[in-house]
Amino acid sequence: MEMKSCPGYQMAGIAAGLKKNNAKDLGLIYSEVEASVAGVFTRNKIQAAPVLLDKERIKSGVCQAIVANSGNANCCTGEKGIQDALHTARLAASGLGISEDRVLVASTGVIGEALPMDKVEGAIPDLIGALDPNGVADFAEAIMTTDTVPKIVSRHGELDGVLFTITGVAKGAGMIQPDMATLLCFVITDIKAKPDKLKEMLRAATDNSLNRITIDGDTSTNDTVLLMANGISEALVNDADQTATFQAVLDDVLITLAKQLVKDGEGATKLVEIVVKGASSYDDAQQIANTVANSNLLKTAFFGEDANWGRILMAVGRAGVPVDPDTIDVYFDDVLMVQNSVGCGKAAENKATQVLKKSEFNVTIDLKMGNGNASVFTCDFSVDYVKINADYRS
Amino acid sequence: MEMKSCPGYQMAGIAAGLKKNNAKDLGLIYSEVEASVAGVFTRNKIQAAPVLLDKERIKSGVCQAIVANSGNANCCTGEKGIQDALHTARLAASGLGISEDRVLVASTGVIGEALPMDKVEGAIPDLIGALDPNGVADFAEAIMTTDTVPKIVSRHGELDGVLFTITGVAKGAGMIQPDMATLLCFVITDIKAKPDKLKEMLRAATDNSLNRITIDGDTSTNDTVLLMANGISEALVNDADQTATFQAVLDDVLITLAKQLVKDGEGATKLVEIVVKGASSYDDAQQIANTVANSNLLKTAFFGEDANWGRILMAVGRAGVPVDPDTIDVYFDDVLMVQNSVGCGKAAENKATQVLKKSEFNVTIDLKMGNGNASVFTCDFSVDYVKINADYRS
Repeated sequence: MEMKSCPGYQMAGIAAGLKKNNAKDLGLIYSEVEASVAGVFTRNKIQAAPVLLDKERIKSGVCQAIVANSGNANCCTGEKGIQDALHTARLAASGLGISEDRVLVASTGVIGEALPMDKVEGAIPDLIGALDPNGVADFAEAIMTTDTVPKIVSRHGELDGVLFTITGVAKGAGMIQPDMATLLCFVITDIKAKPDKLKEMLRAATDNSLNRITIDGDTSTNDTVLLMANGISEALVNDADQTATFQAVLDDVLITLAKQLVKDGEGATKLVEIVVKGASSYDDAQQIANTVANSNLLKTAFFGEDANWGRILMAVGRAGVPVDPDTIDVYFDDVLMVQNSVGCGKAAENKATQVLKKSEFNVTIDLKMGNGNASVFTCDFSVDYVKINADYRS
Repeated sequence: MEMKSCPGYQMAGIAAGLKKNNAKDLGLIYSEVEASVAGVFTRNKIQAAPVLLDKERIKSGVCQAIVANSGNANCCTGEKGIQDALHTARLAASGLGISEDRVLVASTGVIGEALPMDKVEGAIPDLIGALDPNGVADFAEAIMTTDTVPKIVSRHGELDGVLFTITGVAKGAGMIQPDMATLLCFVITDIKAKPDKLKEMLRAATDNSLNRITIDGDTSTNDTVLLMANGISEALVNDADQTATFQAVLDDVLITLAKQLVKDGEGATKLVEIVVKGASSYDDAQQIANTVANSNLLKTAFFGEDANWGRILMAVGRAGVPVDPDTIDVYFDDVLMVQNSVGCGKAAENKATQVLKKSEFNVTIDLKMGNGNASVFTCDFSVDYVKINADYRS
């Protein structure tokens, strides 16, 4: 795949031997000039060394390079893990001729094994040598774990007559659940913006995208979303109009990536949007949507293409928020399947079964209590999810 | 199986055609005299008709019969569902010649389909005819859904020199999660006790047993635990000593049933006790134990016999309670696998892998922060869980 990432950036991805299968596993994003940067990180109390390092470094609001590896999470690796993250950044900085504290790092893979630093050290010169304005596909490949396809989204926009570009790359597949940034995701753009402005826009965009997906309800120790803005395009994002224009494109990039992530969830065969309407509040709606989206019983029924709406009502009922048990409507796409908490019969069920055969559909739950609406993207739960995760380390 | 249940009780279980495969699906417990009764019911906001009916009737504290069916949950069936539950109780009362409000009902099976009352009505006379002091095995079979074995536990004890008996029967397999009574469970005893005393002892026993198990994190709409005491033995439970004596035997019955339920969880091949020690409080310990016990990633690793302790720390970290990320120890049985949040290396991992090959083992997580301890029983998550639940209704 030949694909230009974004003006003023180069990327690379090579095989450093961290994965067992000779696949690409070490990636680099390099901005030709110093860039503003913002990040959101996992809320898991157990945080990997690269997360701990990035959270410190990102306080400066400036960054010029990101080194990311797959095959090893550098998590639960103690003081050595921190030293390894620091050393990785130092090696990249030295090879690139930039300041060490302008380099961020990210890791994904097995928890609890030391990063093989001899392999990383040996590979960094090749990695820098491979930097290319068209390197985005290689980079996207280098951060994949159980992902089956790379995720890259690029969009253009216009600010006060000046073109700008946003390119996002992400990896997901497992340990994905809407509790903050739930994966590795790197977004680069050529706009000019202050770090605080970037942070505000990144938070809004992740709340609207990556925090609305779930694959298995587990939250990783390594989740990281970084947004770099190098200012090459001279498109300025500062006032409210400029912010709204950029936010719309950024949202689009992140929502598109989020949906790609769920579609490629471990073992997933279906992308399902769970829409909750008419809850007492937004928080209640979100809580119900998350509970439904994470019900193993429901997700296995999706896999079996079984319109088992009883499991939807069961999950609504155990979400821990008030619901009127007698007024719930449920739709599969446009098919009304349950009205006032009672099934609509065989004809409706037959139509709903057709909806379930699709690879993408939505389930709408209308509580008819208030104005709280929310939606979450989830996937089905297949035999392959279990197979993938039973054998992940072997 | 010939097995005496408990003095003064008779049971039956027959095939009424509610299940597709001609298996037993209608059961009856009958006490020869009126009994004190206590119950705990699901906390799911969506509650099946039999739960709604029992919660009303149990206020009297007196009961003489319980009709239970499998194959149909009589849930999300609207006003007709309530009428069907009432009618079922009325038919049994009439056949037994007892007052209608002395009959409780319980259902388990598919949600959202009307109970086929013609079949129930036709079968009640045969059901009553089949009542037998040795009928406990038939009854246990009649309440099974995806259970592969019936669960019956009987224990004897002595109160002030008088022998007493407790017999418990349960069904579980799916939609099991520690949020109150999480299944159908019927316990009969021949002691003499007031309903309030029974209720206090039943609550304590369920908190210590059925509320400490999880199979898939889902909570049913039909969960019901009933305890009947008919006083036939003249063993009185009233003062503190008597209560302690009876409570110990009741706890034993319910813990044994709880473990049987998890062992027979849908697709389960392993029974795992998750023990959390040294949390800041009991509530924190319980929250962590539940989160770990419900992690799909960890449960699939158990199935794969993979000592993937990183997933344990991940789950601890996302439990939403304070933990010190650098002081966590993890044991598989007696094997120290993680010390101060860092892995103990290959030798420990090899030993832990041997533990994982067992059909029963425990995982101990020591947070070294305080005195909060809790434990939960869970099972592994297998390919068969998905297969069973993808095809449940077909």
